[in-house]
Amino acid sequence: MQATPVVCFARRASPARLVARFRRGKAVVGLPLTNFGSCKNNIIINNPSYRFLSYLKSPDSDDMGKDKDNKVTFNLKTPKGTRDWAGADTLIRDRIFSTITNVFRRHGGTALDTPVFELREILAGKYGEDSKLIYDLQDQGGELCSLRYDLTVPFARWLAMNPEIRSIKRYHIAKVYRRDQPAVAKGRMREFYQCDFDIAGANFDPMVPDAEVLKVINEVFEDLGWQGKFTIKINHRKVLDGMFEVCGVPQDKIRPISSAVDKLDKLPWADVRKEMVEDKGLDAAAADKIEKYVSRKGRKDLLEELLKDEDLMANAAAKQGIEEMGLLMDYLEAFGVLDTISFDLSLARGLDYYTGVIYEVVTEGSAPVTATSAPEAKNLQKSGKKTKSATGDDDDRSNDPTVGVGSIAAGGRYDNLVGMFYPKAQIPCVGISFGVDRIFSITKARMEKEKAAEMRSSEVDVYVMAFGGKGFTGMLKERMEICKTLWAAGVKAEFSYKLKPKLPQQFKAAETSGIPFGVILGEDELAAGQVKIKEMGLPEGHPEKEGVSVDIKNLVEEIKKRISNKNKGIQASATVLPESTTAAVADLTVSSDAASVPKTEDAGV
Amino acid sequence: MQATPVVCFARRASPARLVARFRRGKAVVGLPLTNFGSCKNNIIINNPSYRFLSYLKSPDSDDMGKDKDNKVTFNLKTPKGTRDWAGADTLIRDRIFSTITNVFRRHGGTALDTPVFELREILAGKYGEDSKLIYDLQDQGGELCSLRYDLTVPFARWLAMNPEIRSIKRYHIAKVYRRDQPAVAKGRMREFYQCDFDIAGANFDPMVPDAEVLKVINEVFEDLGWQGKFTIKINHRKVLDGMFEVCGVPQDKIRPISSAVDKLDKLPWADVRKEMVEDKGLDAAAADKIEKYVSRKGRKDLLEELLKDEDLMANAAAKQGIEEMGLLMDYLEAFGVLDTISFDLSLARGLDYYTGVIYEVVTEGSAPVTATSAPEAKNLQKSGKKTKSATGDDDDRSNDPTVGVGSIAAGGRYDNLVGMFYPKAQIPCVGISFGVDRIFSITKARMEKEKAAEMRSSEVDVYVMAFGGKGFTGMLKERMEICKTLWAAGVKAEFSYKLKPKLPQQFKAAETSGIPFGVILGEDELAAGQVKIKEMGLPEGHPEKEGVSVDIKNLVEEIKKRISNKNKGIQASATVLPESTTAAVADLTVSSDAASVPKTEDAGV
Repeated sequence: MQATPVVCFARRASPARLVARFRRGKAVVGLPLTNFGSCKNNIIINNPSYRFLSYLKSPDSDDMGKDKDNKVTFNLKTPKGTRDWAGADTLIRDRIFSTITNVFRRHGGTALDTPVFELREILAGKYGEDSKLIYDLQDQGGELCSLRYDLTVPFARWLAMNPEIRSIKRYHIAKVYRRDQPAVAKGRMREFYQCDFDIAGANFDPMVPDAEVLKVINEVFEDLGWQGKFTIKINHRKVLDGMFEVCGVPQDKIRPISSAVDKLDKLPWADVRKEMVEDKGLDAAAADKIEKYVSRKGRKDLLEELLKDEDLMANAAAKQGIEEMGLLMDYLEAFGVLDTISFDLSLARGLDYYTGVIYEVVTEGSAPVTATSAPEAKNLQKSGKKTKSATGDDDDRSNDPTVGVGSIAAGGRYDNLVGMFYPKAQIPCVGISFGVDRIFSITKARMEKEKAAEMRSSEVDVYVMAFGGKGFTGMLKERMEICKTLWAAGVKAEFSYKLKPKLPQQFKAAETSGIPFGVILGEDELAAGQVKIKEMGLPEGHPEKEGVSVDIKNLVEEIKKRISNKNKGIQASATVLPESTTAAVADLTVSSDAASVPKTEDAGV
Repeated sequence: MQATPVVCFARRASPARLVARFRRGKAVVGLPLTNFGSCKNNIIINNPSYRFLSYLKSPDSDDMGKDKDNKVTFNLKTPKGTRDWAGADTLIRDRIFSTITNVFRRHGGTALDTPVFELREILAGKYGEDSKLIYDLQDQGGELCSLRYDLTVPFARWLAMNPEIRSIKRYHIAKVYRRDQPAVAKGRMREFYQCDFDIAGANFDPMVPDAEVLKVINEVFEDLGWQGKFTIKINHRKVLDGMFEVCGVPQDKIRPISSAVDKLDKLPWADVRKEMVEDKGLDAAAADKIEKYVSRKGRKDLLEELLKDEDLMANAAAKQGIEEMGLLMDYLEAFGVLDTISFDLSLARGLDYYTGVIYEVVTEGSAPVTATSAPEAKNLQKSGKKTKSATGDDDDRSNDPTVGVGSIAAGGRYDNLVGMFYPKAQIPCVGISFGVDRIFSITKARMEKEKAAEMRSSEVDVYVMAFGGKGFTGMLKERMEICKTLWAAGVKAEFSYKLKPKLPQQFKAAETSGIPFGVILGEDELAAGQVKIKEMGLPEGHPEKEGVSVDIKNLVEEIKKRISNKNKGIQASATVLPESTTAAVADLTVSSDAASVPKTEDAGV
């Protein structure tokens, strides 16, 4: 393969386009230059957002990395809107996962896992305007597939394929994919985790499983330590639809008007009214009637008002919805969780498939920083909600004050979705989806604010080391054998991969990883069948400061005893991860007053 | 949207092609007919492998499911080579995950999680001939991405992006994607799980981390209950390369000849020789010399032979490789796991990036049923290894006797991969990848053969029920309140979603799910502050056969005591999942004799 570098001007060429050209042209050579041009075999990539530059042979070649004349420059990063999870972040996130999973299982949830992509027609027609955000796989021959957009449609597809299942509580924790504008630091990602819990079943009495789902939401946030710091906004599609009919919205405008109303959490009424009347052609009188309804929030008080509203109660859909909301509130009272909800007539939810009760969970970080006070922020929101970052390509919206974390969980009842796949398998469903990336980003921001102690990213309990004087062999095999013994007893242990490591090096390795115990091998002690256990970081004067010698045959027992005592001590002082995670989020000052629910932007769940 | 159905003949049209046509032609109407033709707006899909037919509006439409004249027929299934995981399968699989994760953590592994897709150029040039199996995402504007093919390249990319990390043990459990020919029942999938453990670090002494990775492999299969039922085939790239040089293979033919040798686990020597001499133009004398080497397997015996081989020891690469193998065996002896390996000079491994020791773990199911005995099977293998199933489109190779499960774990040392991304971050690595779907399929096949007891797919411990005479209210809120109390205490509990469920219905629901305890509410007992605890399935004459009444204030304590006793009893009789999984695979008669390692097909790990 021959390649003569040509200096190219690449300010306007996206990496993707350059790579595509490269693939046709065989080789790309690059450095941060300022000229661009294309020739038969060479393109120079120049993009200031490249964090790392690297040198490779052409991707078309198998024996890479040998021919230094064929250099390739490319962007060493994860795709836009995606991230790696490592270290302490992973530990915090896994703690959130296990908290949520424990609640799901406590309520009888069983795990389901579906493929990351579905046949394209499975996803088609399920997401309304948001369908444009679906990631498609390239047609490489065979079936056309797309990455899943949520976990609900795959669940419905699975129920349709397994019509013998007439009742199930399933949970599913997995990543979903949306080609949306990301705001990474706020947990608004293109690849993000959802934790879903859904109850499917025919012949249930109204609102009973719905109430259990709302109880599940409460338990999750209680177990995460967010008591009093979250609000569940709740509404009913039938109340909404009946309300629009009563206000004089024509049948074919109900869905567009509903999606305008759904924007009330981030736009003031005047803007929403303008959209309804000017853009969507709604009668001004109808818009004014809608305003009177959608400004109302409450609990049993609002319910009483609606039950007395003769216009609404004369509408069959609205009447059914209002009565179901009454039933639901009764059940929530029995579960002791009525005070966390806010019956909010402005909540509409974007997805097409909801048929009954709908809900969204919000907390402090859910709202944009600017709320609705700054007119320029409103303008930004209206003009597409994008603020291009200085790097051009990397238009992350994390620093955009008009973007909040959004809702941290959302869901509702969808009685017809399964039947869309297979009418005979028709089964009513109700569920909830938790947005873990957003819950994580709020948790982490809080922990950083509190300057929470650095968390160990390793869980290893013992570092096995050796020392000796002149002619020290390093005792590698002896260290290996001690590790073998510890591993066999289930003790987490490491040792240095050096043949003859110095003792200070070994101590430093243990300290850096926060490993609490050292097991030290010395030649004389080993000859006497003994090793030394040393707890790291003991204060001066502690009786075990210099370590204690134990017989090798008692090592497992002695070390396990000390690890157990150490862990008890840590738990008592609440510095291990689970407790510190909980403690760190405990002070999040989120209003639980239903009358002042923060404004949010709905996306992601 | 108008659509007039036209009867079409579709025997040769794949669903994907029909859907593509459909998308251009706006509507598809379908029934299992035998004629095919295309018209402007309609195509009839007729494919006997469609398990379910369903009716939908065009995917281009948002308000789906309303217009009954625009019907769409499509394939209600998961994409080819993918599957759903549900019920007991998920429990078995999660048990395998947690066994493996525990071993990784015991050795100091920390979790890493990367996006499911990477920038396309990250994957380019890493997989040799297998690059054609990579799934690409469609170019929808922006970056070009592909689904990850393994977890190793994303790990190397992450190391390159984080050059401050100079030493880490990381593990990663996630799905990877390969557009290969699937054999679902044998765990050969297009979407499948890998469990990876890798040690990265500079300045380690030779073969020490390599030995720990091999120790990790041993612990995983021991903890899974496969003692004596697996063999780790092991070789060294430097020994291989030196051997080829000594045999007279020209430098530019080493990789093609190596990949021919790698087929020896499924083809006889004569076929491999033919490929080398006739297809790849190797000198016949060189081929004969190769045969003498690659037929050899052993442990320290083989090592001794090679150390005496003057030709080999005169080659610098071979000498270094052989000496490193000696060092490795010493360390494996210290770890007590030398007897599970087979030093096998025919093992070559397909991937380009290996630079040192390489290994593959095989077990009984790894080999094709036919091994190399049946000539017709050999022919099948030579002619592309495909047997089309009767359904045509669904060419799953599960019933193909020439297809085995393949290796169940594989890995090796790759010292240059990270440097390919960013030379300054260069860091040597060694690791192992476990193929969980294959381990699962062998485990499950064994359990089915043993007719292992049906496993519970639910973990719920208590079903809260109520009964009453005339005027029975159903006591729904009372059942809810009892559940609330149990959940708050961490007890897994369910109740019927019916307002007035009949007692037999409630018992049946508990029995069907295998829930061990009922808590029964009666009106009179409740008035006296009591409920009844009833253990399901007690034998006649048992003192608690009819249940025991307890004060509600003691309910949590009483039920927890019984659940704890019940679980102890189950563990003692080894019928819960962890033990039964282990027991079920314990009899797998896999040879551990290094001289008779089964033939395998390498793919997937």
